[in-house]
Amino acid sequence: MRLVVVGGVAAGTKAASRARRVDPDLEVTIYQEEPDTSISECGLPYILSGLVEERESLVARTPEEFSRQGIEALVRRRVEKVDPASKTLSVRNLATGETFEDSYDRLIVATGASAVTPPIPGAGLDGVFNLRFLTDSDAVLGYVAEHSPQHAVVVGAGYIGLEVAENLVRAGMEVSLVESEDRVAATYGPEVSRRIEEHIKEKGVSVYTGTAAEEVLGEDGRVRAVKLGGEELAAELVVVGTGIEPAVGLAREAGVELGESGAIKVNRRMETSLPDVWAAGDCVETVDLVSGAADWVPLGDTANQMGRVAGTNAASPSGDSPLEFPGVLGTGVFKVFDLGVARTGLSEAEAEDGGFEVVSAEIEATTRAAYYPGGEPIYLKVIADGETGRILGAETVGGNADKMVDICATAIWGRLAVPDLVNLDLAYAPPFGPALSPVIQAGTVLSGKLGRQVRGARATE
Amino acid sequence: MRLVVVGGVAAGTKAASRARRVDPDLEVTIYQEEPDTSISECGLPYILSGLVEERESLVARTPEEFSRQGIEALVRRRVEKVDPASKTLSVRNLATGETFEDSYDRLIVATGASAVTPPIPGAGLDGVFNLRFLTDSDAVLGYVAEHSPQHAVVVGAGYIGLEVAENLVRAGMEVSLVESEDRVAATYGPEVSRRIEEHIKEKGVSVYTGTAAEEVLGEDGRVRAVKLGGEELAAELVVVGTGIEPAVGLAREAGVELGESGAIKVNRRMETSLPDVWAAGDCVETVDLVSGAADWVPLGDTANQMGRVAGTNAASPSGDSPLEFPGVLGTGVFKVFDLGVARTGLSEAEAEDGGFEVVSAEIEATTRAAYYPGGEPIYLKVIADGETGRILGAETVGGNADKMVDICATAIWGRLAVPDLVNLDLAYAPPFGPALSPVIQAGTVLSGKLGRQVRGARATE
Repeated sequence: MRLVVVGGVAAGTKAASRARRVDPDLEVTIYQEEPDTSISECGLPYILSGLVEERESLVARTPEEFSRQGIEALVRRRVEKVDPASKTLSVRNLATGETFEDSYDRLIVATGASAVTPPIPGAGLDGVFNLRFLTDSDAVLGYVAEHSPQHAVVVGAGYIGLEVAENLVRAGMEVSLVESEDRVAATYGPEVSRRIEEHIKEKGVSVYTGTAAEEVLGEDGRVRAVKLGGEELAAELVVVGTGIEPAVGLAREAGVELGESGAIKVNRRMETSLPDVWAAGDCVETVDLVSGAADWVPLGDTANQMGRVAGTNAASPSGDSPLEFPGVLGTGVFKVFDLGVARTGLSEAEAEDGGFEVVSAEIEATTRAAYYPGGEPIYLKVIADGETGRILGAETVGGNADKMVDICATAIWGRLAVPDLVNLDLAYAPPFGPALSPVIQAGTVLSGKLGRQVRGARATE
Repeated sequence: MRLVVVGGVAAGTKAASRARRVDPDLEVTIYQEEPDTSISECGLPYILSGLVEERESLVARTPEEFSRQGIEALVRRRVEKVDPASKTLSVRNLATGETFEDSYDRLIVATGASAVTPPIPGAGLDGVFNLRFLTDSDAVLGYVAEHSPQHAVVVGAGYIGLEVAENLVRAGMEVSLVESEDRVAATYGPEVSRRIEEHIKEKGVSVYTGTAAEEVLGEDGRVRAVKLGGEELAAELVVVGTGIEPAVGLAREAGVELGESGAIKVNRRMETSLPDVWAAGDCVETVDLVSGAADWVPLGDTANQMGRVAGTNAASPSGDSPLEFPGVLGTGVFKVFDLGVARTGLSEAEAEDGGFEVVSAEIEATTRAAYYPGGEPIYLKVIADGETGRILGAETVGGNADKMVDICATAIWGRLAVPDLVNLDLAYAPPFGPALSPVIQAGTVLSGKLGRQVRGARATE
């Protein structure tokens, strides 16, 4: 029995490893287009500042290591065509340019996502980069070593843009951040955006929001500035972090059904519409467990979890494995300089769009008891459904945002409601927060608001 | 309508404030035996090292501040008798020694807990202290200023003893920690105890476990050593942190029913067995929500939550307030030097005693991605019920134990089971942990174990 996995990053390698563990007799081959396997893509920004010193530390496992596991991992091989009828693949060896045929009994599509570059004139100039793979960070570092850029423009102020901006500042550059939305981190609420913007300005980043990069200007084929609302920002380096899209070309041409998000449609067992074809990771559509709607949330941890389910099921005799991947809450966190920024579940806007009666509470607290030195501010907003009291989402920024968001994500996963948060038995000691966690404080505020709503409703009956 | 609250620390002051907010016409008096109200007892160890510089910073609200809220807070008044038939109280003014009578319509008992000193000969010598109130830390600091002790013995290696040991080391003393159990922090599993012991030894604490302090030896009425298994440990200062017990004398004599733990029995509305008498805080018995058994968990955050329910209900016309306090998970955290130590739910031993089929997973991870600098080790054990997969408890020690325990506590509160942990959508970014949270890793290990159990069970059918 032969399993072929297309894609060798988080979902693909996890799926391959799981499959091999479930069925040690399985023949497993991974085809990976990039020269590295198991790339920790989330670590790429930190290569730019040297905070992460060795590019090799971002490779979790090399083809040699996979080989020792009994998995064949072939890099610089692009799968160009899948024929589900004959269960064959056409693969190009990017080193030689040659194409060869392979076949599979079972197939896992883990083709990931690709960077979307907005159609800015001049985006093809030397010195303009995306940051998606180690080959991209290699290219940026090579360019920086050669040209010593003093000024950098980062296009896009989502989490990748913000992480890149931080690391270019750490690398000693003057950094401008350009965002076409009216604020940074626009998938968060305005208060979170305001705090991030204030913080990164303090750290020396120039922020341009509500304005799009119109043109990249060059000299001798190399970037020298970015044109922006009549202004020219000097830039010997431009990094574009405006977003990614699911890489579904191969699957679509093979006849795999796509979902409404444009990513590959799978069921909870990670099965695609084609027999013996599973899919996992950034190329896959999943379900938002709060709204129940189809969603596409390309994140490394989720890819890993999906890969586990896909790999286990692909290696199990049909129907034997009970493993399912139920969906996501859209939980995410990033760091920008000294701030943690995180969210889970629905934003206020998403909850309103979803037809919920939105009630929210905003808490300002510190990461330690007031009297215990070293506390940092933490802001937490928790969003609930006014009708049922169910917790729908949370967003947070500050010292221990990563902790706050994981508590809230777990609460949402457990379908907790406001009265649960009020009495939740969280851990307290002075070095770790106020006596009542900001999550409990938010629950208490929400409890008051819901109480008034109920009383208000009764009064008008 | 007059509400009297007996006890002015966490539960009592919270109850008084809530009651006053619910019914602004309510006349509220707090009787507090100590000279300070709203003492942050958890902060007391940090006074000893000067990490917390001002004793006043451990007083959340003074009687003057309560007065501005319309609450009368009378300190150094000990309520000596309650007559529920006549709804009267007998109160002693500790400043004058005089006794006076008062009456109530509604009463909240928040008498807290008192230190238990084991009957060690010589425990009455000068230089031997408990650490329960600000008056205790005042006394220690006064003694230290006068006698400059170089050697300290801390009796009891629970969390208070460990916190005190750390702070006396920080204050420049040579510290010995004596524990009659065979390991420190014995309410945790052996692996947690081992890590704590290793860490505090590195920090210079001498640890004596499995041996009881036999006698405190003195000279001129003042401590000079502690006798211990034939050995004498030099000690010019001894702090005893061997435990506390619920302070229920007043309530018991008034005819309030006690629970099996010895603490006051209340229902979920925090009502005692007597009409118009509520109770909250460290003097109260509650329910362990995992085992369903009666439990006594004296902690400041829980006291606060109980006080909210007691105060709201005591101020509400009968039956009008829906507020309930359902019980606890026994969640707790403490810091000792650079280690966080935390637990929630049942320990392995408690789960076995509770008749569960115990399955556990132990994870060793770091607080950051492997390649991201500055990560600290974190150990997490998660305990599940082998029959249902339900998460029963967790214990953790290391860099972000406070985060791990709050995720697990929320999971247990939501009655999550092993498959939930495996797919839980927690937040990942390299500065905040490994791609898959230790909680998810533990869930995955448990999933494997449960799967084998199920397969094993089938094979033997």
